[in-house]
Amino acid sequence: MEKISSTKNSKVKEWVKLKTNNGRKKFKKFLLEGRHPVETALEQATEYEFLIVQEDFDLGELAEQVDNDKLILVTKEVANHISDTVHDQGIFLIGYINEEDWQFPDDLSGKWLVLDNVQDPGNIGTMVRTADAAGFTGVVFGDGTADFYNPKILRAMQGSQYHLQLKRLNLEKWIRNCKDQGSVIFGSILDENARDYRKIDVPDQFSLIMGNEGNGMSERLIEMTDMNLYIPIKGSAESLNVAVAAGVLMFGLAG
Amino acid sequence: MEKISSTKNSKVKEWVKLKTNNGRKKFKKFLLEGRHPVETALEQATEYEFLIVQEDFDLGELAEQVDNDKLILVTKEVANHISDTVHDQGIFLIGYINEEDWQFPDDLSGKWLVLDNVQDPGNIGTMVRTADAAGFTGVVFGDGTADFYNPKILRAMQGSQYHLQLKRLNLEKWIRNCKDQGSVIFGSILDENARDYRKIDVPDQFSLIMGNEGNGMSERLIEMTDMNLYIPIKGSAESLNVAVAAGVLMFGLAG
Repeated sequence: MEKISSTKNSKVKEWVKLKTNNGRKKFKKFLLEGRHPVETALEQATEYEFLIVQEDFDLGELAEQVDNDKLILVTKEVANHISDTVHDQGIFLIGYINEEDWQFPDDLSGKWLVLDNVQDPGNIGTMVRTADAAGFTGVVFGDGTADFYNPKILRAMQGSQYHLQLKRLNLEKWIRNCKDQGSVIFGSILDENARDYRKIDVPDQFSLIMGNEGNGMSERLIEMTDMNLYIPIKGSAESLNVAVAAGVLMFGLAG
Repeated sequence: MEKISSTKNSKVKEWVKLKTNNGRKKFKKFLLEGRHPVETALEQATEYEFLIVQEDFDLGELAEQVDNDKLILVTKEVANHISDTVHDQGIFLIGYINEEDWQFPDDLSGKWLVLDNVQDPGNIGTMVRTADAAGFTGVVFGDGTADFYNPKILRAMQGSQYHLQLKRLNLEKWIRNCKDQGSVIFGSILDENARDYRKIDVPDQFSLIMGNEGNGMSERLIEMTDMNLYIPIKGSAESLNVAVAAGVLMFGLAG
């Protein structure tokens, strides 16, 4: 079992880079942190490179599951350095990014949540968790949307990433492929002239597109949908939080 | 117009205390920050003690609305000191807390969202905004729930505090008073034996109680409701984010 006490160690330098989009692209790995997320990843038999724990960390039952060759002990200083949080829990996992994330699924049937340029990691993680709860097949991350290996998104998904498919794809191509396979594309917009989501016939197979927190869906995609939906606002609020709106629409459409 | 350049000024010391629950209780005032929240407060003709701006702040059209006796200029150092955010916008307002917040409304009719021991300021602000959008009459903050003059909650409400009634009340008394006036009390719990929210007759007047993020509603309140509702979870997620669950229920019940 390796021990690392310097933040200048080459492995540590690589781990820190995994906190960025570019670093993850370069090394095709991601950094997961926190006891519950790491335990869940190990339960799911995720392929991983290293399990990293702070010297005084009590592995408990995890000790039996872990391959000693993959276990690395680090000092508190190194743990703080690689952590993305203010108070880290002293446990990290280096996982491999799946090449299939960038490949179109063979089967586009089912219900898909599609994120067009959504920015906030908390909102994104919450939407993935809600899509899981609403029985959706998967979530498609469009070009402008934050990467789902972003450490904040990984935490906010709370394990839902293992229950549905996550894809990182070009959304124009997604829409064209869905239409080819007879799956309906719903946009969501803040416009009373759009269709009230409670007053439509919901097909078995569809994609629901949610747009950017401030600017909504991109114009190009709005034009490509089969139908654009809106949630009637009764009070004086100008809009809904995007994760709440996604929840209302997903449970409303999934019946 | 007064100018303050020291963080040791007695006014500055009071303002900093308004970031805490105890400070707000003592002085019966609250601190609001950011251009949009302050503009909205002024548009709503909120009673205020001071408008505080950093020296180089461009008031623009606000200049005409502001009473010069209430305007205080501060240095960048003082602005940083009183701010609750990492990057403050250089504008703050000191408002008066309304004594009516602690009084039962004469009329309990309509739809009320009731928060039992909800903790996260972002969740709370989002729920108030969603209650506004769903046409609710007001939101009741129970004893254990964060104070709605908490700066983070003020920001997250995005002005919805001016569109509906916010109350800080004892929830057991709230439930008894509602029952006396013929208003129905719905709890929300994670239990498949509770009633599916889509399969009930929804009355015109009701309260919907949302519980703590981790532990749900308190047992005492669960026993006092007329009916407890749940959202059927189809996938493998263990639960929904409380603000998403509140959104699904409020729009589901409000029709």
